[in-house]
Amino acid sequence: MDDCIFCKIINRQLPACIVAEAQKVIVFVSRHNDLLVVPKAHIKNIYDLDPETGNELMTELIKTATATKKGFESDGIYITQANDPAAGQDVFHLHFHVYPRWHHKAKNNVTRVGEQERRATMERVRNFYE
Amino acid sequence: MDDCIFCKIINRQLPACIVAEAQKVIVFVSRHNDLLVVPKAHIKNIYDLDPETGNELMTELIKTATATKKGFESDGIYITQANDPAAGQDVFHLHFHVYPRWHHKAKNNVTRVGEQERRATMERVRNFYE
Repeated sequence: MDDCIFCKIINRQLPACIVAEAQKVIVFVSRHNDLLVVPKAHIKNIYDLDPETGNELMTELIKTATATKKGFESDGIYITQANDPAAGQDVFHLHFHVYPRWHHKAKNNVTRVGEQERRATMERVRNFYE
Repeated sequence: MDDCIFCKIINRQLPACIVAEAQKVIVFVSRHNDLLVVPKAHIKNIYDLDPETGNELMTELIKTATATKKGFESDGIYITQANDPAAGQDVFHLHFHVYPRWHHKAKNNVTRVGEQERRATMERVRNFYE
């Protein structure tokens, strides 16, 4: 979709720190330094997700969670997915967030990060992406 | 696993408000009145999830999200999945939470509910489970 920032990232009209790309799914670093697992087709939310794309999305979600834990050497991984503004959805292109989590909770408070941190995250996770 | 409460629910050793059951996945109501989408095999967390079970899990997750929104007539759906205690995992059998969400945020604050509310949720969601 023309005005969708995720579609622009997928079409390489906007730069992004891309960790991995499969046939129907892309994985990149968010502005808050977590990982986003996203269908390449402009699917608005989970109600509209077809099982075939969903299958690949789950496969990449497993890989992203595993690689994020290893790449960050984190103590855990938290996954969220929001549908509709009432649930906090802000970009209306389906996405799963993958957050590294630590016992030392202060480490979990990440606000917006710059290009350099995002590139470091991309490389960290990419190293363990299988 | 012997001491796992989700395994006991799956094996019908503990009662639960079961919404749906597929070959490898079960959906039931949690004690906080949200929906849980759970593999029947004792898979600890997402790092151990095989893609085949993951595929069915995603299919049931899509159905559960859609049926929960319709059944509760909610404004949105929020999905979470925690791995390891650092991320808030408390039952060590993989599960996705599916929460109905409202613009009127007070409606989102559900604490533990009793058998009657859980049965009502089961029926509400079941009616729209396709």
